[in-house]
Amino acid sequence: MTILSDISDLSTIAILARGLPVPDAASIAEAKERQMSLTKPPGSLGRLEEMAVFMAGWQRTARPAIARAQALVFAGNHGICAQGVNPFPQEVTVQMVANFEAGGAAINQICRVSGADLAVVALDLDRPTQDFTAGPAMTEAETLDAMRRGAEAVDKGAQVLILGEMGIGNSTIAAALACASFGGAPEEWVGRGTGSDEAGRALKAEVIGRGIALHGGASPLGTLAAFGGREQAAICGAIIEARALRIPVILDGFICTAAAAPLYKADPRFLDHCLVGHQSAEPGHRKLLAAMEQTAILDLGMALGEGSGAGLALGVLRAALECHNGMATFAEAGVSDA
Amino acid sequence: MTILSDISDLSTIAILARGLPVPDAASIAEAKERQMSLTKPPGSLGRLEEMAVFMAGWQRTARPAIARAQALVFAGNHGICAQGVNPFPQEVTVQMVANFEAGGAAINQICRVSGADLAVVALDLDRPTQDFTAGPAMTEAETLDAMRRGAEAVDKGAQVLILGEMGIGNSTIAAALACASFGGAPEEWVGRGTGSDEAGRALKAEVIGRGIALHGGASPLGTLAAFGGREQAAICGAIIEARALRIPVILDGFICTAAAAPLYKADPRFLDHCLVGHQSAEPGHRKLLAAMEQTAILDLGMALGEGSGAGLALGVLRAALECHNGMATFAEAGVSDA
Repeated sequence: MTILSDISDLSTIAILARGLPVPDAASIAEAKERQMSLTKPPGSLGRLEEMAVFMAGWQRTARPAIARAQALVFAGNHGICAQGVNPFPQEVTVQMVANFEAGGAAINQICRVSGADLAVVALDLDRPTQDFTAGPAMTEAETLDAMRRGAEAVDKGAQVLILGEMGIGNSTIAAALACASFGGAPEEWVGRGTGSDEAGRALKAEVIGRGIALHGGASPLGTLAAFGGREQAAICGAIIEARALRIPVILDGFICTAAAAPLYKADPRFLDHCLVGHQSAEPGHRKLLAAMEQTAILDLGMALGEGSGAGLALGVLRAALECHNGMATFAEAGVSDA
Repeated sequence: MTILSDISDLSTIAILARGLPVPDAASIAEAKERQMSLTKPPGSLGRLEEMAVFMAGWQRTARPAIARAQALVFAGNHGICAQGVNPFPQEVTVQMVANFEAGGAAINQICRVSGADLAVVALDLDRPTQDFTAGPAMTEAETLDAMRRGAEAVDKGAQVLILGEMGIGNSTIAAALACASFGGAPEEWVGRGTGSDEAGRALKAEVIGRGIALHGGASPLGTLAAFGGREQAAICGAIIEARALRIPVILDGFICTAAAAPLYKADPRFLDHCLVGHQSAEPGHRKLLAAMEQTAILDLGMALGEGSGAGLALGVLRAALECHNGMATFAEAGVSDA
């Protein structure tokens, strides 16, 4: 059972945001007070202090901790590849899923370093979504199905959830979702993705323009169905389920953040428990983060996906909690306060 | 024995840069080739790829690894505090050293998370350097002594060295070293440091201006002696010794980078084996990094010192090496290359 189990209509999902858990104000206040008492100038741990307080709110304790971290990577294939938007063949999605399962991808190494249990969910890779320039990428039922599978994959015992994706062609899906959600010209949202050149970038923008012309004016979750894909819908499902379980989420980079854009548009509160791990080298990401009121934790020039940036940010989050819980207070250490 | 053991004259130190080890070009080429063969689009791990290749050059192997990481925090006291540049009393330096030794500071928690052995070196805390507005902060002999003690503290068996500092008043020393090394008005280099307000900031700039008027035109290492302090000189000594041992260094934030500015001015090659861990919230740091041709790995709004930003960056470096060594190649994983 997940929060999405009984939902049979996409249009009702936005309503869910109204009843989801919110952070605990008392734990936040207590965690802030603790931060002020630790042996450092107030605020000098910057983002680390904010992250510790954020975790305190969702865990409903002034001393949040991570015993179990889950990384979920969703994989899907996309009909839009018929338009030639990606130089890699679609078989690479299946091959990379096998690579994840064999432990050979970047996310495997990053999860080992940062202490996350990785699970990979391949979503009907032999059945790509429809080409969004010809019609909706997914039916409402397919969208809901993928969202449910995302929700079901969430480890109910985790204290933090890392989200990532893999899918040849999905940087075009991401730019389309961002453009449809927040407006502007397709060119402003499109980067080179994996291995495209300048002509490839122009093609992607043109293809997205045709999609927007066809599906413009759809509801936020209608937009998710219109452009796809399954891994994007699964990410949305996992975000909502994690929220119902009060599990904070670290979104990865451009594609993962764009996957969550329809949820943000449906109701910004859906993402209150989400951080963004990495500012992607894809140019549209900065604009997208501004639109979604987020600031990425890391900026390392990466553009890989797979949850790699979120997995690295988990290392920072762990350090933030270690400082929060492990540091001495001024009183304990006998250090003079200002 | 260290590379500085027999040196009795500050002015000869610049000459050392000519004979120091350089990275191994063959290992760099081999590491780059490996990066191109791993199951990811070329360049998609961004800074992580660069860091792995950097480590390969210094370790003289295409597969660099970190078995032992050392974090060194040097502490000193500064006569400039007589000018009222810091609201905290100087006893806090001793108190914080005790806190480091008891495991209660931020750097202790960060070293535990990122797997570094922390050593703290307190440098004559009961004997602050001289007020640089009245004369040189240190004699040439004191400067060389502190440099030697920095060099002696380096663990010869480490594969990476994290450098940090603690010293009430040393954000003023840092701004003075930066200003004397790279020019511009003191105001451009001065931030609020630990707990100063706008008036405190103006006072720091005025004090630095008087120091520059007194010591302007000194040689790079003469500048180090003129403004101090012992922890800055120890950082310079540790950097040179690490280099002689081919141990890459991660400098911390503003104060630690500024400590290395005299070395950079003496010969930029001194810092070829150095990365910078964290872009400080202190405004002068961005300008300083540009002058020293460095880009910080992290930008988390921190302004603490102690090696905290460098320690966090070690986590990123570890992930970079795990990806470099642990990922499958396209051939191994049976993934189609573009």
